[in-house]
Amino acid sequence: MNNDAIGVFDSGVGGLTAVSELNKILPNENIIYFGDTARIPYGSRSRETVLKYANEDIAFLKKHKIKMIIAACGTVSSVIGTNVLVDDMPFTGVLLPAAQAACSNTKNGRIGVIGTPATIRSGSFAKAIKTIRPGTVVVGNPCPLFVHLVENGYTDRDNKITKMVAAEYLAPMKAEGVDTLILGCTHYPIIKDIIADYMGEDVTLISSGKEAAKYAEICLVEKNLLTDRTENGHNTFYVSDSTELFEENAKNFLGTKINGEIFSSNL
Amino acid sequence: MNNDAIGVFDSGVGGLTAVSELNKILPNENIIYFGDTARIPYGSRSRETVLKYANEDIAFLKKHKIKMIIAACGTVSSVIGTNVLVDDMPFTGVLLPAAQAACSNTKNGRIGVIGTPATIRSGSFAKAIKTIRPGTVVVGNPCPLFVHLVENGYTDRDNKITKMVAAEYLAPMKAEGVDTLILGCTHYPIIKDIIADYMGEDVTLISSGKEAAKYAEICLVEKNLLTDRTENGHNTFYVSDSTELFEENAKNFLGTKINGEIFSSNL
Repeated sequence: MNNDAIGVFDSGVGGLTAVSELNKILPNENIIYFGDTARIPYGSRSRETVLKYANEDIAFLKKHKIKMIIAACGTVSSVIGTNVLVDDMPFTGVLLPAAQAACSNTKNGRIGVIGTPATIRSGSFAKAIKTIRPGTVVVGNPCPLFVHLVENGYTDRDNKITKMVAAEYLAPMKAEGVDTLILGCTHYPIIKDIIADYMGEDVTLISSGKEAAKYAEICLVEKNLLTDRTENGHNTFYVSDSTELFEENAKNFLGTKINGEIFSSNL
Repeated sequence: MNNDAIGVFDSGVGGLTAVSELNKILPNENIIYFGDTARIPYGSRSRETVLKYANEDIAFLKKHKIKMIIAACGTVSSVIGTNVLVDDMPFTGVLLPAAQAACSNTKNGRIGVIGTPATIRSGSFAKAIKTIRPGTVVVGNPCPLFVHLVENGYTDRDNKITKMVAAEYLAPMKAEGVDTLILGCTHYPIIKDIIADYMGEDVTLISSGKEAAKYAEICLVEKNLLTDRTENGHNTFYVSDSTELFEENAKNFLGTKINGEIFSSNL
């Protein structure tokens, strides 16, 4: 048993999809979250810059008492691929949990992946899927505007602009007849209704943040690292830009006020 | 006379609108440009973070032999307002030159300003315009997606998505009957045709980067700092993320290959 917190990081509010799932399945755990809001977005940057930022985010989390790290960021997870950035505690990105969930789900062996330009350019999702289930057809498409639409509140199911952008990005997935679509960026679940409306009800959407949270639970159980706390745990959020902007974005993102204290902190 | 370079900085490719104008009106001058591509965009960040980044950008430029600094970034210029970040050489942002040009141009005393959220939130353009020409009606509207549309190449005059976004952002300007519209972010001239098509031919667009370049020429003449070089000057570009991504974005932005050497440099 271990009462230290689970460390989670992302470039912005996207990783909150993983936090929500952790709060649901592991309500007694403490979470320490770092959102690199002063340097978002990661998905349009080079591999080298993404790696540098990820290592700095991890160094920040390690200043706190944590027992595991989740890179709740599709871009970081894809850029590192199956490498591990941490060797002294359990670590996961969203790549393998999401790839595994998609492979379990698909019936016709055709999986779509949407993510940031850096995620799609890395080819990591396709590689992971083909390792887990050889012969699968993988269709990837970068969606450079989705993060900005989400961060700027263009998230209503009826939003005309987001619907038009989604139709453009998702057309290749539909044309290829995928039955499973990985939301390879943790920002995308917030517009999942728009994505689902376009793709149709026969296509299953896989939330990469949610799958990473489920995988983290298994890790902690296996390594006997769950808390023995019986009351609810606390979320603590650190961001590299202002707490007010984060609080506002998080509220748009989650649809409710963020649950936990927020601090601003330089890396 | 002084043969040092003119230093120009922006968060990304936007400031190249100022460089193009400088190359045109001062062809013998050398330019040293810094684009903070590892941390773009500035316009969605807090005032404190924008100021921190701007000071770091200036410190970088000052490591080179320069005789003047142009903050070719609407967000930085607005956040500092009429303050000056440099006291040992001439300095200008885009705020006052663009405000002055708009005030000279307007006939009906109604000026529109579009910019990033940080620019509009600062209120600096409205304040500068009302100082120069009291009684002017100023209508401001933030355009959070424009920078991302431009940086991701959604720039064709017929691009449906950019046209739809533009219509949403510009509707209040049209409704208020402005006859002059300040493009308060140096990224916006690249979609000026889309903006002009929506606003109509009776509305004059003011490019803030271009106005800053024109003002810089006056500064250099006044202070006797023009070069006495008779051959063409050189542009040298430094960026905080990869040179390849910058080269690609700059090509989309300018419509031609960038004119000068590009180096990657950590701040």
